[in-house]
Amino acid sequence: MTETGEKMYNLAAELFPIQRSLTGEGVRETLNILRRELPGLQIKSVPSGTKCFDWTVPKEWNIRDAYIKAPDGSILCDFKKHNLHVVGYSVPVDAEISLEELQEHLYSMPELPGAIPYITSYYKERWGFCIKDSERKKLKPGMYHVKIDSSLTDGVLNYGELLIKGKNDREILVSTYICHPSMANNEVSGPAVSVYTAKSVLENADRNYSYRFVFIPETLGSIVYLSMHYKEMKEKTAAGFILTCIGDDRVYSMLASRDGDTMADAAARHVLKNIDRNYKEYSFLERGSDERQYCSPGIDLPVVNIMRSKYNEYPEYHSSLDDMSVISPQGLSGGLNAVLKCIEAVEKDCRPRITVLCEPQLGKRGLYPTLCSKDSGLRVRNMMNFIAYSDGKRSLIEIAEKIGTPVWELYGYIDSLTDAGLMELD
Amino acid sequence: MTETGEKMYNLAAELFPIQRSLTGEGVRETLNILRRELPGLQIKSVPSGTKCFDWTVPKEWNIRDAYIKAPDGSILCDFKKHNLHVVGYSVPVDAEISLEELQEHLYSMPELPGAIPYITSYYKERWGFCIKDSERKKLKPGMYHVKIDSSLTDGVLNYGELLIKGKNDREILVSTYICHPSMANNEVSGPAVSVYTAKSVLENADRNYSYRFVFIPETLGSIVYLSMHYKEMKEKTAAGFILTCIGDDRVYSMLASRDGDTMADAAARHVLKNIDRNYKEYSFLERGSDERQYCSPGIDLPVVNIMRSKYNEYPEYHSSLDDMSVISPQGLSGGLNAVLKCIEAVEKDCRPRITVLCEPQLGKRGLYPTLCSKDSGLRVRNMMNFIAYSDGKRSLIEIAEKIGTPVWELYGYIDSLTDAGLMELD
Amino acid sequence: MTETGEKMYNLAAELFPIQRSLTGEGVRETLNILRRELPGLQIKSVPSGTKCFDWTVPKEWNIRDAYIKAPDGSILCDFKKHNLHVVGYSVPVDAEISLEELQEHLYSMPELPGAIPYITSYYKERWGFCIKDSERKKLKPGMYHVKIDSSLTDGVLNYGELLIKGKNDREILVSTYICHPSMANNEVSGPAVSVYTAKSVLENADRNYSYRFVFIPETLGSIVYLSMHYKEMKEKTAAGFILTCIGDDRVYSMLASRDGDTMADAAARHVLKNIDRNYKEYSFLERGSDERQYCSPGIDLPVVNIMRSKYNEYPEYHSSLDDMSVISPQGLSGGLNAVLKCIEAVEKDCRPRITVLCEPQLGKRGLYPTLCSKDSGLRVRNMMNFIAYSDGKRSLIEIAEKIGTPVWELYGYIDSLTDAGLMELD
Repeated sequence: MTETGEKMYNLAAELFPIQRSLTGEGVRETLNILRRELPGLQIKSVPSGTKCFDWTVPKEWNIRDAYIKAPDGSILCDFKKHNLHVVGYSVPVDAEISLEELQEHLYSMPELPGAIPYITSYYKERWGFCIKDSERKKLKPGMYHVKIDSSLTDGVLNYGELLIKGKNDREILVSTYICHPSMANNEVSGPAVSVYTAKSVLENADRNYSYRFVFIPETLGSIVYLSMHYKEMKEKTAAGFILTCIGDDRVYSMLASRDGDTMADAAARHVLKNIDRNYKEYSFLERGSDERQYCSPGIDLPVVNIMRSKYNEYPEYHSSLDDMSVISPQGLSGGLNAVLKCIEAVEKDCRPRITVLCEPQLGKRGLYPTLCSKDSGLRVRNMMNFIAYSDGKRSLIEIAEKIGTPVWELYGYIDSLTDAGLMELD
Repeated sequence: MTETGEKMYNLAAELFPIQRSLTGEGVRETLNILRRELPGLQIKSVPSGTKCFDWTVPKEWNIRDAYIKAPDGSILCDFKKHNLHVVGYSVPVDAEISLEELQEHLYSMPELPGAIPYITSYYKERWGFCIKDSERKKLKPGMYHVKIDSSLTDGVLNYGELLIKGKNDREILVSTYICHPSMANNEVSGPAVSVYTAKSVLENADRNYSYRFVFIPETLGSIVYLSMHYKEMKEKTAAGFILTCIGDDRVYSMLASRDGDTMADAAARHVLKNIDRNYKEYSFLERGSDERQYCSPGIDLPVVNIMRSKYNEYPEYHSSLDDMSVISPQGLSGGLNAVLKCIEAVEKDCRPRITVLCEPQLGKRGLYPTLCSKDSGLRVRNMMNFIAYSDGKRSLIEIAEKIGTPVWELYGYIDSLTDAGLMELD
Repeated sequence: MTETGEKMYNLAAELFPIQRSLTGEGVRETLNILRRELPGLQIKSVPSGTKCFDWTVPKEWNIRDAYIKAPDGSILCDFKKHNLHVVGYSVPVDAEISLEELQEHLYSMPELPGAIPYITSYYKERWGFCIKDSERKKLKPGMYHVKIDSSLTDGVLNYGELLIKGKNDREILVSTYICHPSMANNEVSGPAVSVYTAKSVLENADRNYSYRFVFIPETLGSIVYLSMHYKEMKEKTAAGFILTCIGDDRVYSMLASRDGDTMADAAARHVLKNIDRNYKEYSFLERGSDERQYCSPGIDLPVVNIMRSKYNEYPEYHSSLDDMSVISPQGLSGGLNAVLKCIEAVEKDCRPRITVLCEPQLGKRGLYPTLCSKDSGLRVRNMMNFIAYSDGKRSLIEIAEKIGTPVWELYGYIDSLTDAGLMELD
């Protein structure tokens, strides 16, 4: 896992500096790197102006340069030094303006004076610069030259899609987003872990489920994608996992689906609890990523978020402080492990049923100690509990919850018991 | 509201001194005053001897005078000074008796030595006087003249009924009682708030529901009323509210229906919790008013009590201390506000359903901030949560509970969203 | 009850020293004593080799003598002094062996150095001795003569069955085990209380239910019994109670059925809680007696354990310390009382329904105080609550739970109310 952690970290680091937004060159550059890792990845384009449910795909935004020249000639908010300096989707500007006028176009975080905030204005034409509050405070009166060399033109919205066939048509969805410029936990951790999740799925020739990996711009991307695919996804999706903020090493967390009672909820809740008793479960009321669309009324997909430190809940969130020091190979590895265990829990879920009446005689099959003493009951307690609750009515995860053991400890028992002809799986 | 509070207090004060009991002139005098306030009020009479389920309407009781003349010629327990001095339904008496014999007919409260208790004996012929324990202790041996100038004769039991038509036949019931002599919170607060509830309903030409206001003697009155109306009430009643002890300013409380799961329970629980986090909910096991009949097996109406300080739970209860100083214009106003909010919650309840798939684009309709920053999600959180749970399956109150906001904050969102064509109400 | 307690204690004392195991003479001797107490008891025999579900009845084990002769000629582990000294189902042995080799056949409890442990090896041929750890530590090197004069031969497995007919075919099962040598709480308490439970049932000519008492070797006995009777038991059994560890005086406890929601669970939970607020309820995960079979998937009988100190939970368990000083007449009496109250709760369970609408007028029937005062509501509160919840939907136990009173306090109300024509029982 450590080696994979390093690989994920390196991929994240490669993606980090790219200028991403809802649309534009940076999204395509990102998707090309992901396709290098996952050759089956399809890169799709949806033209500006396309209607998707209540929304319309906006113009494509590209930016080449941006800066502010101060009265003393110094350069501030240099886009080439940090792409967070420009408000996302800023219209072009090239003008001399007073400090007073400039202030109306500046965004900073007084509570984090050393951070450049992340700000966008997708749906109203604006321009603006994001600046450290400590620098903003030093600005002196005078005339400033503001320059944003950007363009808003008819173009496309891009996303990536990787479909992997399994033994049956039921699908597991893995969704992550590719629309934020240089941020680590709240951007590049998601694609990095998604790529290695897909690699792991591809290595498992025995998979029962089919898989749908999507790499989309957040919010509008899921709306666009759902507008084209929601009917088949409603039919096929067994469980879905949004991977976001999944690279730091502070906590494990999940965000439940709207009703909190889907297969994805059960799997994520069980896995995270058994990985880390202190994991946090957030309710759908605290949502903020693409579950807003996947779980909306009428879409109703069984989708949860799997995260380390949740968006909006860690101090570096949506600022330049969310850099590559926030995430780590260990953090990404932990996230990947949680995702793979969730997927495995869905893959292996079944309703086991013991085939003999009364307890089976495990002793004659070498599955039970032959000497009955005060402790022997305890030693095989887990397997006996598993048998006792394998009544054909409970799912494997429900049994694991009931008997208080991680579901992955039951996989071996299933093999032993089915081999011995004592168990059938419905 | 303050002005209405004063009006309710004045009406309560006018009703306070009247000699009320299960039957008799005082009940009619009370009903006549209520009819002056609510001209549509029907005053009904049910003759003594009428069979009502397991009960029979008793003789009508009237009383003109009552007192005890002490050996020293002084007058005690003068009915004309306080009508609580006589045990309700006392038979006439005019006799000289010893102190010893008198004691068997006296009732006092050692734990509240300055209070005259409230005692009745509707169903067994008796006579008695209620006296402050402090005065009782001073009684000296000797012969006492006891005089009760009362009559028990064939007559009628009276009650008032006000039916108000709405757009549909489903009804909201408001019930209160008019059978206690001079007590404030546990008597006149109920009719005062009921009258102003009815006035408010009459002013709302848009009401969806029909309304049934009843002013009845407690217990027997509801039995009599139900024996004549329960079939249509079972068909029509959507929610019912008993208004009792609703005039003081110490607490808000409700008492749940037998199973605690009706529309009336949901509305009252939600409204009171959002008016006052410290409201008290009493279970049906602590019942004591007409819910005993409305919620009895086979009647099963969706009825709860809405109260300030519950009967039996405040020190002045059922004694002369429950006087006009216990209630206040503010207390009555608070009670009226709670009742009207409950009624509004029933009137406006629906199952809202969002009409577009995925989140609607509120920005283009001016319902969402156009600049996306760290805080903007929080600012419109309530409306977005409302939309997220408007799945056509949940009632408005359920959504309000789920998203943790008073239901009345959602009424405006409904208007905005239905106006924008984004919401339909089932 | 005290007298019965003494009788149960004496019967337990008589059974205590007998050499019992899964099979053999001691089991028959035990059953003969039980038949003396319960003349209707049928003693059954199932031949070695009989297939029962996944199991086979083993050979019959009998033992006449066993001991170890130390190098100095002293006798250790003398079976005639304590039958726990021999591992149950030990094969015969007669040999000189070194201390080193002997150690592999010795069992002791370092944590309880003065106790002889209870060890069996039913399903693998072995021989062994159980010894106090304090004595084991004193053993000196040298040659030891080990002698076990036992036999494993084709024979039978025995059990006892007592069927008692009631007014209907629905059955109450009482099951206990008879397979441990000299242990008190975890063996002879069960048959003693079962016998006096049966005597009490036989004395009650009015019983509605039929009864099935079984006295079986634990685990294999219930498997054998179920393999022959489970179909009719699934049809007929309303509730079943396993009596085990029911003779000490430290605590009351129960162990729930697999899903914890049967009539037996409801009755035991209610009865024990109302006997002792500090009773313990164990989940099915902590099972260890014949509920393992009765509640296994596909058998699914409504069976719970009723116990004082649960097996595995008291220090003397499965050792020679579990002697007659652990149990007492009071302990057994308390256990019997709990069992009889559970049986009575099943016998009397019904869905009471009040036959009049609104509250009945109890006053005219002498069931209600005629003078209405502040306290009178409280005095008849229990009966009024019972009436209020007698809606024909709730069982008697559910009502008792709801109104917070022991179910046995309701039996008298049922009589009064049905006599008055106010209640019917469904």
